This record gives sequence, structure tokens and C-alpha cells, in this order.
Amino acid sequence: MIVKDRIEILENLKIAATARYIPERVVSNNELSTIMDTSDEWIYPRTGIHNRHVVTDENTSDLATHVAQRLLEKSGWSADELDFIIVSTMSPDSLSPHTAAIVQGNIKASKAFAFDLNAACSGFVYGLSAASALLSSGRYRKGMFIGAEVLSKLVDWKDRTVSVLFGDGAGGVLLEQTNESVGLIAEELQSYGEMGNAILTGRFANQNAFSGEISPLDPYFHQDGRSVYGFATREVPKIMNKALDKAGLAADDIDLYLAHQANERIIRSMAKNFGQDLAKFPTNMAEYGNTSAGSTAILLDELVESGQVHPGMKIAFVGFGGGLAIGVQIWQL
Amino acid sequence: MIVKDRIEILENLKIAATARYIPERVVSNNELSTIMDTSDEWIYPRTGIHNRHVVTDENTSDLATHVAQRLLEKSGWSADELDFIIVSTMSPDSLSPHTAAIVQGNIKASKAFAFDLNAACSGFVYGLSAASALLSSGRYRKGMFIGAEVLSKLVDWKDRTVSVLFGDGAGGVLLEQTNESVGLIAEELQSYGEMGNAILTGRFANQNAFSGEISPLDPYFHQDGRSVYGFATREVPKIMNKALDKAGLAADDIDLYLAHQANERIIRSMAKNFGQDLAKFPTNMAEYGNTSAGSTAILLDELVESGQVHPGMKIAFVGFGGGLAIGVQIWQL
Ligand SMILES: CC(C)(COP(=O)(O)OP(=O)(O)OC[C@H]1O[C@@H](n2cnc3c(N)ncnc32)[C@H](O)[C@@H]1OP(=O)(O)O)[C@@H](O)C(=O)NCCC(=O)NCCS
Ligand SMILES: CC(C)(COP(=O)(O)OP(=O)(O)OC[C@H]1O[C@@H](n2cnc3c(N)ncnc32)[C@H](O)[C@@H]1OP(=O)(O)O)[C@@H](O)C(=O)NCCC(=O)NCCS
Repeated sequence: MIVKDRIEILENLKIAATARYIPERVVSNNELSTIMDTSDEWIYPRTGIHNRHVVTDENTSDLATHVAQRLLEKSGWSADELDFIIVSTMSPDSLSPHTAAIVQGNIKASKAFAFDLNAACSGFVYGLSAASALLSSGRYRKGMFIGAEVLSKLVDWKDRTVSVLFGDGAGGVLLEQTNESVGLIAEELQSYGEMGNAILTGRFANQNAFSGEISPLDPYFHQDGRSVYGFATREVPKIMNKALDKAGLAADDIDLYLAHQANERIIRSMAKNFGQDLAKFPTNMAEYGNTSAGSTAILLDELVESGQVHPGMKIAFVGFGGGLAIGVQIWQL
Repeated sequence: MIVKDRIEILENLKIAATARYIPERVVSNNELSTIMDTSDEWIYPRTGIHNRHVVTDENTSDLATHVAQRLLEKSGWSADELDFIIVSTMSPDSLSPHTAAIVQGNIKASKAFAFDLNAACSGFVYGLSAASALLSSGRYRKGMFIGAEVLSKLVDWKDRTVSVLFGDGAGGVLLEQTNESVGLIAEELQSYGEMGNAILTGRFANQNAFSGEISPLDPYFHQDGRSVYGFATREVPKIMNKALDKAGLAADDIDLYLAHQANERIIRSMAKNFGQDLAKFPTNMAEYGNTSAGSTAILLDELVESGQVHPGMKIAFVGFGGGLAIGVQIWQL
């Protein structure tokens, strides 16, 4: 295999800061077993999840606002410098106002525009794609991108098949144009809408005064776990290979693979598939469960904090999930 | 005032096709007056709305899929040529799958990725901004962008203060990279999150098994109509001026202003504010009401069809509404 000395940067962009915010309340598998017929013995071996954090009195925009404030503190940027704020979420506070606008108001980003993006569990990679394109087009210089979820409001806590899997949390990055040789090397994004019914959440009643009710309002997750498992282990490696091809890199060239934290077994299967040491696929779902668009950003910030992710590294961000959808971005930090 | 002969194109992009889809069922003000205490005499002078169309058995992805199919027919593009599909909506079928993924599956756009974008009634302009950035970054060549709404499922048909204002519908465009001297001249986007509560829709219950219920699930629109009216008439002209400044154009240089179709009085006030003939601010809310992210795309397609919009024109797209948010894009067609 060829480990390249010089790689080509597609778009020169700098991740100027990372941050995360996790609600305090921890719910362990053991605590869950007191309210439903489940156990740590069932959950952990199948998913790699021991705990998840859930909100008590916060909503999605609150988690995202904490992340936004930490990003500004860490970077020294003032809110006024931000050109835009994008929040990836499948669990917004509301359909209007959108979550990113609430964050924009909270941090007084007086020159920023804001929108929400929904690509479910691929939300981190898809949001990073949109944010980098807005910068690389040359239109804007500085952007904030946050993945934030309160999935605890979208799971039926009486349904053990989904409630044990998800958690609440948020993470984000500041991005800016740069002349340095860092940034996006390649991306490969692909949707699979024909499989959309494998993960259903938050269906809106299609009813009005002039038609019968077609589909009752149902906020809750319904998942065909086996299909999703098969989809992820089968399709994600294909998309990762396409991204590596575009980048002109081999799997060994990537220093770390930061994958969506849905299930440890899925991640182990990816590592094996790529002949990579499991240490190159760090995980944290043991503590947070699946936080959808939040998961990769939370993991990134933890690894930056511990020094395991640092400038000079090549990172692959790997998202997969609802839509269905997959996305891979390869960055030179 | 200076009417320029040569304008500078910021990003060379071509609108390769436009299309719309409106559900068949028409509900007139007179019909509304049979189910609530209202009248054409109250509604029309205040809003410019006579009718709205509402779905009977379709959801948002159905409207968007019709638009997608018409876009492909009109352009002769095959679904496989699409690099991405973006759907702007504040009334998705579901939080997962996202509406754009359903459309991607329906039209078998086998190479496309898809995401939803939410910037409420500015969704057309904000979505066009993200779509053009993905193309202008150089990453992608051909994209589909649709604004689609089924707002009839988000209004309480017993609440006359909001139900008379909204309607269902969808419209969209195909965008591609081009060498021709056409495309985006300038954009100015701005959010006002501190005013977010003026338009509330689709609040998600923030409840779980470990906390009290904080905000009950409420799908319905609640609006401070007077604040929104004041906001739009006061702030939109400022953003339009900033966009014109960026473009190096005067108000007279713009051939047509295609504004979000919320309220005819708001649009009349804009035209007056800009010293422009009302004929340069075409409207269609008389027939469709406010279709949020769908409105400007529907209007655009109607005007293309009638020959009123054609290559060589300079068009300003003007969005405003929930978030709160405003966006203006100026295009050379
Ligand atoms: C969800 C998942 C862990 C389920 O594992 P599985 O081995 O497929 O389990 P099944 O759904 O077939 O259920 C097996 C049994 O366990 C039971 N079960 C389901 N959830 C349970 C729980 N939390 N505790 C105890 N038993 C449970 C089922 O009822 C079933 O019982 P039965 O055999 O008596 O009918 C697994 O499918 C998975 O991880 N899928 C991927 C999901 C995912 O990551 N989605 C997000 C992608 S972004
Ligand atoms: C909504 C709007 C037409 C209301 O007009 P308004 O003159 O501000 O009217 P008010 O809300 O003050 O209501 C005046 C009276 O009419 C009544 N009324 C409200 N809706 C009514 C209806 N559909 N039919 C009859 N009466 C109605 C009110 O109850 C009130 O009665 P009261 O004086 O006895 O209390 C106007 O505020 C508006 O167009 N705002 C902008 C909204 C908008 O475009 N939003 C979307 C932006 S994207």
C-alpha cells in the first residue's frame, strides 16, 4: 500500500475550535432495567452502550447554545465575527423557530444567518459538507457548525427496542477559510431513500379540515434494527472506499476514523473490513449512546481535549443512519 | 440612478429548469367562512389571499416528488445525473426519513445525496444559497433544489388567526455549473433569533421518563401577526439594500423582485419603499396563500411558463419569515 507524503487539499479550511455539551443526568442500563424489561447483559454486548445522558429541563437549542458559547470562548472569536450558524438536528425544539436561529439569537451573532439541516445520523458529515461549501464558495469567511440532539423526547420509553439505544448531546466546530495546507481532502455522500422506512421518527399528521386523517402524528422512533445493522456494515465500507479513492489515499493513510456512534459492533465490523486496528476507530457510545448528529462532534472534541486528535492528522468522518444516508469526509487537520 | 451595462457574476450557475406542483383541492375564503367566524371581506383586504390549496391524501414528499419528476421531464436530465437533492421545508413528512431522502428514493436518483433544510419562509432563498455553494465549491455539477410545504397539517383549523393565511404547495429548480455569464450576483442573509417567538410552529414535547414534561407537543402555528408584519416591512428593505450594494446595482437595475408570498400589503410596502412599480413585484398569494418555502419557487415557475421571466433578466429573490430570518439573492438569468 502507498502511504503518500504529499496529499492534495481540495478546499483550504481550518477547524478553529471544537466543543461539546452533554446533559448531566446519566441513565445506566441498570436504571433502565428498573423501568422496562431489559438488562445491561442484553444491551451492552449488542450495542457497546452502558449509559446515556438525558435532559431534564433543557431542549435541543439549550445544548447547542452551550456548545456555541464554548466554541466562542475557546477560539476567542466574538459572536459578531460569525457569518453563519448551521445546526444539524433531527430533534429540533420546533419547526419554527428553527434551532439554529434560536442559537443565533442566544449568542447574539448579530451578523449571522442560520439554518437547520436534517440528514439524521449523517447530520454531522452532511452539515460539515454544507458549511465548508459556504466557505469554499468564497462567500463567507467564518462559520459555526453544531450537531445537537434531544432524542429522549422522540423515544417511547415504554419501547425497549429503541429507547435503550439513544441519548442526548451536542458538539460542534468553528470553521474558517485559511491559506494553510489543511482542510477538506475529499467527500463522498450518498442517500438511500428507498430504504427510508427502516428508521422512522416524528411523523407529522397529514390531516386538515378538508381530508381524512392519513397518518396520525407519531413523534416516536420505530426501527428495523436488523436492516439498519445490515445496511451499515454492508454499505458504509463502499462509501469509505469511494472517498479514499477520491482522496487518492489508502485506508492506512488515515490516522483516525471518527464514525457515528450508533453501535460498537458496527464500528468493529468497519475496522475489520478495512484491515485497520480498532484503536483507529475510537468510540464513546458506552457513555452517551447514539446521539445522532451530535455523536461525531462530541467524539472529536473529546479526542482534541485528550490530545489524541491534533494538527497534522488525517481524519475520516463517517456518518450513517436515517434517510437512509451515508457520508464520509476526509480532512487534513 | 446608474443602470449598469456589465454586471459581475459572483458564481456562474444556470437555472436549468423550474417546476411546481399544487394540490388540486381549492379552499376559498367563502368556504372557510362556513367552518369558522371569518369572511372574504376580512381576509382579502388584509392579506391579498382569496384561495389556498390543501392536500387531501398527499404529504410533503409527494408534492416534492411531483416537482422533481417535472424538473427531470422539462430538462431532459436523468435522475442519475443529480449530485444532490435539497428540500427546504418546515413541514416535513417526518424527522426521519427526511423529505429529501424520500424524494431521492422516489425518483431513483441513484448517485445523489439528500438533506432537508429549514429556514421557514426564507427556505427558498436559504436553500438556493446552500445549493449554489455546493456547486460553486466545485465539488458538484448538478443539483436539484425544491421548496415544499404541507402547512395545512400545522394549522389548527379552529384558529382563524392563522388558518386563513397558509396553503400547501411546492416548487423547485435544477441548478448546474456553467461557463455562461449567468448566475448568482450577490446574496445577503440575516437571522433575528431574538424574535423567534413571533412565529411558533411544531413544538416538540421535551419529555422523557426522567424529567417532568416541560413543553407539551404542539404541532400548530402561533403567530404574533402584527410583530411579523412590522418586522417584514421594516427589516426586509434594509437587507435588500445590502444585497444591492454587494451587487453594485440600484433598485431600478432589477427586472423583477420575486418575494415570499406571505401578504400582499407587505409586498406593496416593499415596492413603495424601493420606488418601484408594483408590476416588478408579482404576486400569486391570491390563489395559494402563504406556502412558506414553496412560495417563491411556485411563483418563479409560473412566470417562466408565462414568459414573464426569461434569460437575460436580473431577478431578486426575497425571503422573510420564521426564525425570524431574511434572505435576498440577486441572479442574472
Ligand atoms: C437494535 C439491535 C441492538 C437489536 O439487536 P438484534 O440482535 O437485532 O435483536 P432483535 O431486534 O432481533 O431482538 C432479539 C430479541 O431481543 C428482544 N429485545 C429487543 N430489545 C431489547 C432490550 N432492550 N432488552 C431486552 N430484550 C430486547 C426482542 O424483543 C427479541 O425478543 P424475541 O426474540 O423474544 O422476539 C441491533 O439490531 C442493532 O444494533 N441494529 C442497528 C441499530 C442502529 O444502530 N441504528 C441506528 C443507526 S444510526
Ligand atoms: C395576520 C394579519 C392579517 C392580522 O391583521 P391585523 O390587522 O394585525 O389583525 P389583528 O390580529 O390585530 O386582529 C384584528 C381583529 O380581527 C380578528 N381576526 C383575526 N383573524 C381573523 C379572521 N381570519 N377573520 C376575521 N377576524 C379575524 C381578531 O380576533 C381581532 O379581533 P378583535 O379586534 O375583536 O380582537 C396581519 O397581522 C398580518 O398580515 N401579519 C403578517 C403575517 C405574516 O405574513 N406572517 C407570515 C410571515 S412569513
